[in-house]
Amino acid sequence: MPVLVMKFGGTSVATLDRIRRAAKRVGLEVAKGYDVIVIVSAMSGKTNELVGWVNETSPFFDAREYDAVVSSGENVTAGLMALTLQEMDIPARSWQGWQVPLLTTSAHSSARIEEIPTDNINRKFGEGMQVAVVAGFQGISPEGRITTLGRGGSDTTAVAFAAAFDAERCDIYTDVDGVYTTDPRVCERARKMDRIAFEEMLELASLGAKVLQTRSVELAMRYKVKLRVLSSFEEPSDTAGTLVCAEEDIMESNVVAGVAYSRDEAKMTLVSVEDRPGIAAAIFMPLSEAGVNVDMIVQNIAEEGRTDMTFSCPTDQVKRAQKALDDAKTKGDINFNDLVADTGVAKISVVGIGMRSHTGVAAKMFKVLSSEGINIKVITTSEIKISVLVDRKYMELAVQALHDAFELEKSA
Amino acid sequence: MPVLVMKFGGTSVATLDRIRRAAKRVGLEVAKGYDVIVIVSAMSGKTNELVGWVNETSPFFDAREYDAVVSSGENVTAGLMALTLQEMDIPARSWQGWQVPLLTTSAHSSARIEEIPTDNINRKFGEGMQVAVVAGFQGISPEGRITTLGRGGSDTTAVAFAAAFDAERCDIYTDVDGVYTTDPRVCERARKMDRIAFEEMLELASLGAKVLQTRSVELAMRYKVKLRVLSSFEEPSDTAGTLVCAEEDIMESNVVAGVAYSRDEAKMTLVSVEDRPGIAAAIFMPLSEAGVNVDMIVQNIAEEGRTDMTFSCPTDQVKRAQKALDDAKTKGDINFNDLVADTGVAKISVVGIGMRSHTGVAAKMFKVLSSEGINIKVITTSEIKISVLVDRKYMELAVQALHDAFELEKSA
Repeated sequence: MPVLVMKFGGTSVATLDRIRRAAKRVGLEVAKGYDVIVIVSAMSGKTNELVGWVNETSPFFDAREYDAVVSSGENVTAGLMALTLQEMDIPARSWQGWQVPLLTTSAHSSARIEEIPTDNINRKFGEGMQVAVVAGFQGISPEGRITTLGRGGSDTTAVAFAAAFDAERCDIYTDVDGVYTTDPRVCERARKMDRIAFEEMLELASLGAKVLQTRSVELAMRYKVKLRVLSSFEEPSDTAGTLVCAEEDIMESNVVAGVAYSRDEAKMTLVSVEDRPGIAAAIFMPLSEAGVNVDMIVQNIAEEGRTDMTFSCPTDQVKRAQKALDDAKTKGDINFNDLVADTGVAKISVVGIGMRSHTGVAAKMFKVLSSEGINIKVITTSEIKISVLVDRKYMELAVQALHDAFELEKSA
Repeated sequence: MPVLVMKFGGTSVATLDRIRRAAKRVGLEVAKGYDVIVIVSAMSGKTNELVGWVNETSPFFDAREYDAVVSSGENVTAGLMALTLQEMDIPARSWQGWQVPLLTTSAHSSARIEEIPTDNINRKFGEGMQVAVVAGFQGISPEGRITTLGRGGSDTTAVAFAAAFDAERCDIYTDVDGVYTTDPRVCERARKMDRIAFEEMLELASLGAKVLQTRSVELAMRYKVKLRVLSSFEEPSDTAGTLVCAEEDIMESNVVAGVAYSRDEAKMTLVSVEDRPGIAAAIFMPLSEAGVNVDMIVQNIAEEGRTDMTFSCPTDQVKRAQKALDDAKTKGDINFNDLVADTGVAKISVVGIGMRSHTGVAAKMFKVLSSEGINIKVITTSEIKISVLVDRKYMELAVQALHDAFELEKSA
């Protein structure tokens, strides 16, 4: 029988009543003839509580013990979900990560999945079981210890199961009803997309549209798992949510799929840096070692052997970046006249696989911003994305203007 | 190095602060040169919460899922205890039941321990680990599923580990400071005993002095594990608590060790039962099948082929007992004139291994009660125990009078 993977996030299993509502959705898919694998998160708030206890107990904790503690919330929901399904006369049982076993690396608290043997669960499906409920977020290391996959890891668990069992689809139930062309809180004309390409989703997710863990989208792209994001609080329907899928599964698409933004960006400029081979490495190695997440990088044209180097990073990392660069200057590794930090900027990006075949998107974007009187401070582009830094006070205006200009309220 | 087992109950690990206090006690024993195995319960209240969720989800639950859910509380405390010890620079790690593995039968929610292989933990002790923290109450079935040992099962886990590792002693940390000659709330002259024999503890535990799970005492008796019951809220001392040990480890003891009582007893009398071979089985089989815990049984002398049969059971099982006996009468399995239930009685017992060699304890007990004007309704005796049923209103008086008469406030 075809396999369907259904993942329920923390808010979808926050109470016994919500677990019952989730189980009813599982029942609908069972009735359609699917063998269902349900992946559950911990009840909302539980994992945070456990993480808090670990941090309070041991600030520099042993990650193996962290994993043993924080994985327990998922075990509770897995058992309760199996019991709820049984009460509905649906043959079901729970699996903890080590029982599957979901084999991972030993990188505790951020382990990577190595393999998911399918024989145990498939044998049970063969014996008449209709739903396998699996505790998300957790696995077992080669040493036989419990591992976890990092926050949001249950999404990745779900996609990995969908890949391993060759599932027809992987439905991610959450508290939003899909992926939007932009944040509806910023632009009321934001439209829920029916479909979005993996590549677009990756750009949107890493830009702040935090619907799915980025790793889960990467994994889905690699194994061509059809991912559907939908709300567990809406009435079931075949067209609910947003399907995240391969480019070839999208018949027609807008050139621009969505507009993303990131509010807490800072623009850092090294003024009059000595321009020589290896200078970029000399600047960005110390930043990397200091844990600064450098995003955009722009180097101006050099004059007389000196140049200006600009980069962006989250505002809360500005001090760390300044210290790293000052230290490098003191040590003589780099030489610059001034370091200017502008912590009042925001990043706006337009994303769309259609850009690959359509020209003029960048030009149109710049014209729209210009006609609104918004000054662009930094520009970077990739194959399917154009990002700019603007003054933060213009952020909402920029998002709305771009959403309108690219007619994102209309579907393709 | 000698092994010590230390078990901390739910109130002793109820908060991070209490876990730290418990860990300090573990540190004291490590400093004495012990390899320590710590058995932890769930934080107090956690297991009740989980059991509540299971019951609400599924009144006739699948015990395998019940076990998967309710065992999770111990995993949390095991990890937190290991982290706390590590913070004190004591090499420690946590084990869940399946990791040891603690092998049990498949009788989910009331599994029995089959074997505890010692090689994994001993290897770690050999590598310099000083404390193994084990999640109590849980094990793994031959089918690879999580099992639990029944409520209070962490006591049994602790004793089983002490037996498997040939521990010097098994310390049970709880919220009472030891075993008393009687309930201090009923008799203010109650005295904490320094030592008590396994057999006495078994009689006192099953009679309501609920300090230790009865199974753990049975197991300790079989494997001659020295059990110490003590409070985690008192200052550490070598003479703290009560040592539960073999008779031969007690130099000198009172004839009577303690006075126990049970408040909620009912006395049921079948009046004028047809007296024939097999009548006892015909009465008590249906009661057993109805789940009635029959305690004392007394049969009066038969006259003209009929007799009165009296038994006691908990008051909340009276209706169930009445229905079972009425049904048996309707079916013609037994024949009686009347069924009289007296729900206003209490059971008083005096317990002591000294009774084996001393006569006159029963006579003295009856005389003491008589001189207080207390009528005895039913008497049963065993080798080391004499129990009587009296009107509940005399319960406290009876306990106090017996405690005084046998001079239990004085140690041997």
